[in-house]
Amino acid sequence: MYTIEALQEIVNQSFANQNFIEEPKLLYEPIEYTLSQGGKRLRPVLLLAGCDLFGGDCNQAINAAVGIEIFHNFTLLHDDIMDKSTLRRGKETVYKRWNENIAILSGDTMFALAYRYFLKTPVANIHNILDVFTETAIDVCNGQQYDMNFETQPDIHMNEYLTMIRKKTAVLLAGALKIGSLYGKCSDEDREHLYNFGINIGMAFQLQDDLLDAFGDEKTFGKPIGTDIKDNKKTFLFLKAIEHGNDDERRILNDWFAQTTADNSEKIASVLSIYNRLEIKKHTEQEIEKYFSKGLEELEMINVESEKKEPLRNFVKQLLGRKH
Amino acid sequence: MYTIEALQEIVNQSFANQNFIEEPKLLYEPIEYTLSQGGKRLRPVLLLAGCDLFGGDCNQAINAAVGIEIFHNFTLLHDDIMDKSTLRRGKETVYKRWNENIAILSGDTMFALAYRYFLKTPVANIHNILDVFTETAIDVCNGQQYDMNFETQPDIHMNEYLTMIRKKTAVLLAGALKIGSLYGKCSDEDREHLYNFGINIGMAFQLQDDLLDAFGDEKTFGKPIGTDIKDNKKTFLFLKAIEHGNDDERRILNDWFAQTTADNSEKIASVLSIYNRLEIKKHTEQEIEKYFSKGLEELEMINVESEKKEPLRNFVKQLLGRKH
Repeated sequence: MYTIEALQEIVNQSFANQNFIEEPKLLYEPIEYTLSQGGKRLRPVLLLAGCDLFGGDCNQAINAAVGIEIFHNFTLLHDDIMDKSTLRRGKETVYKRWNENIAILSGDTMFALAYRYFLKTPVANIHNILDVFTETAIDVCNGQQYDMNFETQPDIHMNEYLTMIRKKTAVLLAGALKIGSLYGKCSDEDREHLYNFGINIGMAFQLQDDLLDAFGDEKTFGKPIGTDIKDNKKTFLFLKAIEHGNDDERRILNDWFAQTTADNSEKIASVLSIYNRLEIKKHTEQEIEKYFSKGLEELEMINVESEKKEPLRNFVKQLLGRKH
Repeated sequence: MYTIEALQEIVNQSFANQNFIEEPKLLYEPIEYTLSQGGKRLRPVLLLAGCDLFGGDCNQAINAAVGIEIFHNFTLLHDDIMDKSTLRRGKETVYKRWNENIAILSGDTMFALAYRYFLKTPVANIHNILDVFTETAIDVCNGQQYDMNFETQPDIHMNEYLTMIRKKTAVLLAGALKIGSLYGKCSDEDREHLYNFGINIGMAFQLQDDLLDAFGDEKTFGKPIGTDIKDNKKTFLFLKAIEHGNDDERRILNDWFAQTTADNSEKIASVLSIYNRLEIKKHTEQEIEKYFSKGLEELEMINVESEKKEPLRNFVKQLLGRKH
């Protein structure tokens, strides 16, 4: 059994050993640039943790772990074009540093490379594994489209928002765990519990990201506070405020979120003061707590010794504790 | 054994039976729009022909055939963004009709859908099949990058050009045949001959496309004559003319291919007159003939009864005879 730190080390070591540069260089340099930046490597670590939980061989699953991280980074490359984001992990995004065409094509290539990595390790149930990966990939694309739809959709219901983040974020964490489990041995029921654990943790993770955007500490969060507000992103916080606000507060929020201004300090302050008045932080924390607990419940229902679940418990606490 | 017409019918029928519309609609409408336009369906037909040649079951291979056509159309969707092409098969391209973001994301989804189709039919050697598909996909991306590099690269050597079209066009035809063969039974040697047949035919096919751009009949070609000249595409014809031209002709060609003009009639006429003087049509036809013959040689070396190869022979003659 591995600790999370040991799994992180395996993943980091594995990426350090890869050479992503091939010909034509202009296609692979952005790939190397993206994949060498690190990041939290959540998905490959979860994949290996899912494997290890059910007695699988992490040496067998490592290529799938690399593959899922490449896939995740491919989606970021294309999302950054679509969102016109110029910075990611404190560095210029690929479309900004090179150009859009390069970012499109390097991304496409990364999607294929993800499959190449999955296919590096021959396993009897590769069909099954690639089924899960492929359906997860489609879900992630669907989620990104819902997210784009929201930019112009006038009324977004909370349920639609939760469906969107489930697809855009949670299914990939859950999919990573499920794929990992396929390198080990477990019942369909246990696999389902592990998947549901991933979904709930993924939801909590995304809601926490929403929360930190408004109430985080700029130093530890790594992004300026209020970016979602500036970009008119209708996150959980906004939708909750619309739900709880009076006519006046709703009108003010909707007005702010319908405009872009050169100086955002007044906008951010005004929105935050409504969030504070409506106790949006508390409401969001309650929702995160709900998903977090539900996730842990699912984990507890898995039929392996409690001790073996300790790495995943720790991981989740680490992940969701990053605001402290 | 199926005739090519019967295989075409199977492919068309199969596409007619698919429903590509899912939620969110805005993501899947462009996919349906693209895949319902028809086109020649070369790649799925070749895939089934490769299967049938070696006694495979076309009902088993049909999903892979649909998958490879979806993949091909995904590359067109993204190529059209990169090339800023507004028309394809006489209709608006996806990025033009919707927008760039939709074209990026619908394309990404199609790439995943291609894998979904491959995975629809359980076969023992799926690992092998997906290896070939994935490596082919990576080659196609590499080819597109070489093509983009050429836009700004000052001196393109003929060999570089031939490498580019091999990757961008030929490997997908060859890959389709090879994947098809994996649904049947044959020796590695025969599979290699079939692959090489595909490469050579693919090269001939692309060179013919180059040729028709300058010397085709607008009515049967379906595109205006001289598009490559207008767009400064350094195709086989241009590079051959640079090879054979004197200093003066080279200078004129390089001058024309370094500028864009509002009225292209003078440019096209001037370039064509140099092509005519240097007998570029004849040189290109000789090169096409060379690849065509080499392809047929590879086909003849395959160890199955000659009669079984008749559909592929006919197909190639049909394909390369379209200038008459």
